[in-house]
Amino acid sequence: MDRIPILRMGEFLLVTIQVDMHDQLALSLQEDLTQRVQKTGARGVLIDISALDIVDSFIGRMLATIAGTARLLDAQTAVVGMQPAVAITLVELGLQLRGVRTALDVEKGMTLLRAALERRA
Amino acid sequence: MDRIPILRMGEFLLVTIQVDMHDQLALSLQEDLTQRVQKTGARGVLIDISALDIVDSFIGRMLATIAGTARLLDAQTAVVGMQPAVAITLVELGLQLRGVRTALDVEKGMTLLRAALERRA
Repeated sequence: MDRIPILRMGEFLLVTIQVDMHDQLALSLQEDLTQRVQKTGARGVLIDISALDIVDSFIGRMLATIAGTARLLDAQTAVVGMQPAVAITLVELGLQLRGVRTALDVEKGMTLLRAALERRA
Repeated sequence: MDRIPILRMGEFLLVTIQVDMHDQLALSLQEDLTQRVQKTGARGVLIDISALDIVDSFIGRMLATIAGTARLLDAQTAVVGMQPAVAITLVELGLQLRGVRTALDVEKGMTLLRAALERRA
């Protein structure tokens, strides 16, 4: 697979990451997401990582980069579905994903993003 | 990966298929989806296959089985995001996915399922 599908859900974009992210795939995802945010005028990006047992510093950085880029295009990012073990590892690695909102699942993530958008409106 | 994540979106469940489905993965998905429909009382299942370049008879049958099982549990299924080339191949293979609703993308799939549920209400 060379592209991760990006699904549009109203004003949000949704990505579920299911496979190991090698460099090229991560770059493509960042590019695709940025373009889709710009093209669709999406206000939020939801990234579901519930399928990932391991999130290393590479993925951690990718998530932070996506969130940072989306923010510049006026969209908020929420990373959802993180497994508890992944959260522990990330903190142990010193990767606390600052600037990235998190929620337990997609629904809670949407609620979070909607609330964030309302505060800004 | 041994499990495909199933995301809950309100009254619907959403699955995006991104990887080649070997037998065990397909069986797990069918089982997981059935259980989630029953547990959550979901009224609809959306299966996004936009990442698939090839849908063979194995996947075709899996989609039909999922739709059939969901129907018995009172949930409608929509397969969304099918690539045109995939549609051609399916028809050439004689697999027309009867009993499976299709839509161009997740949003249209949701609209389709909502309309189907309203007609039944």
